[in-house]
Amino acid sequence: MSTASARPKGRPARFPDRRHDVLRVAARVFSREGFRQATLADIAQALDMTRPALYYYAESKDELLSQCGLISSELLETALAAAQSEPTGLAQLRRWFVSYAEIVCDDFGRCFVLTDRSEMAPAEGKRNQQRQLHLGHAAAAMVRQGIADGTVRACDPVMASRALYAIFNGMARWYREPHRQTPAELANDFLEIVFQGLQSPG
Amino acid sequence: MSTASARPKGRPARFPDRRHDVLRVAARVFSREGFRQATLADIAQALDMTRPALYYYAESKDELLSQCGLISSELLETALAAAQSEPTGLAQLRRWFVSYAEIVCDDFGRCFVLTDRSEMAPAEGKRNQQRQLHLGHAAAAMVRQGIADGTVRACDPVMASRALYAIFNGMARWYREPHRQTPAELANDFLEIVFQGLQSPG
Repeated sequence: MSTASARPKGRPARFPDRRHDVLRVAARVFSREGFRQATLADIAQALDMTRPALYYYAESKDELLSQCGLISSELLETALAAAQSEPTGLAQLRRWFVSYAEIVCDDFGRCFVLTDRSEMAPAEGKRNQQRQLHLGHAAAAMVRQGIADGTVRACDPVMASRALYAIFNGMARWYREPHRQTPAELANDFLEIVFQGLQSPG
Repeated sequence: MSTASARPKGRPARFPDRRHDVLRVAARVFSREGFRQATLADIAQALDMTRPALYYYAESKDELLSQCGLISSELLETALAAAQSEPTGLAQLRRWFVSYAEIVCDDFGRCFVLTDRSEMAPAEGKRNQQRQLHLGHAAAAMVRQGIADGTVRACDPVMASRALYAIFNGMARWYREPHRQTPAELANDFLEIVFQGLQSPG
């Protein structure tokens, strides 16, 4: 995605680029302040923009959150489809949760994971819940496929999916740059623990 | 702990019992509404008590939260000491996280885990952070002991501790009674996954 700094100096941003910047900052403010606490004035200030200029992109916090939700959903669905193309259940899980970690440690994904659903407008809360349920089912299906193809040990796919999302949603909470490891490196370390198990085989 | 219903009918509660009931309801309201949103009026209403009567137990939300924090800390420290008496690192981890799940799926522990630290008075936020760091170190020490005594596979103890707390703190978020499994049963299912690992040994 293009950012303000990638554009030729002095040339005004095209609307879609600038819109993406605005939404990214909105997502960041929502995750940092909490959706209920955050104000349009906070977002305008973080963008060094006037409130009327911000209205050009969205008329309300709810509208901004809804647009952020759409972008995070597109990022997640693209990554999910890529992961589902892997040949085994275990490889699918690995690829998916590395991508998931990268997404939820960045602005849109963090907003998707951390915004308190009870604070959203009802329609957006419902969409957020449906997206999370869909991702939960997708990971459980990867576990099921892994059990079928022999790469995953017999286990409860729903519990395994829950455990994995708990770990990676947790990363959205505590991961902050700068960090000595990238989200993908940390994800691989977590997957090593969950795939190999803590109990000594000896 | 004694509850209102366990007391002889018509006999007024002794202060410590009633105080414990008041704090439990406060903890429940804080986790449900969010500490910032919750009001003393909400707590008084949930207790079917007047605001002045509530002032007899605590003069502010901050004071109630601090007392709830003290109770959860006592519950957790008692359980931690019991777990640390187990002979191997793996057995310590199992006992500790089953207890932890039981505590964080009940009112005081849920309040300890779910209350947003940024909303607490600074001194209480600091105490909460220190308690959580202490528990994190304690679990990492169990992993380290398990590696030393041969019951735990070689791994990064800090990452293992983080993964385990992410899973069990997640339970505080989604577990609600009635549920077909108790917190201890669910904890054992999660531990089976994390101890055995997802990857098929075949």
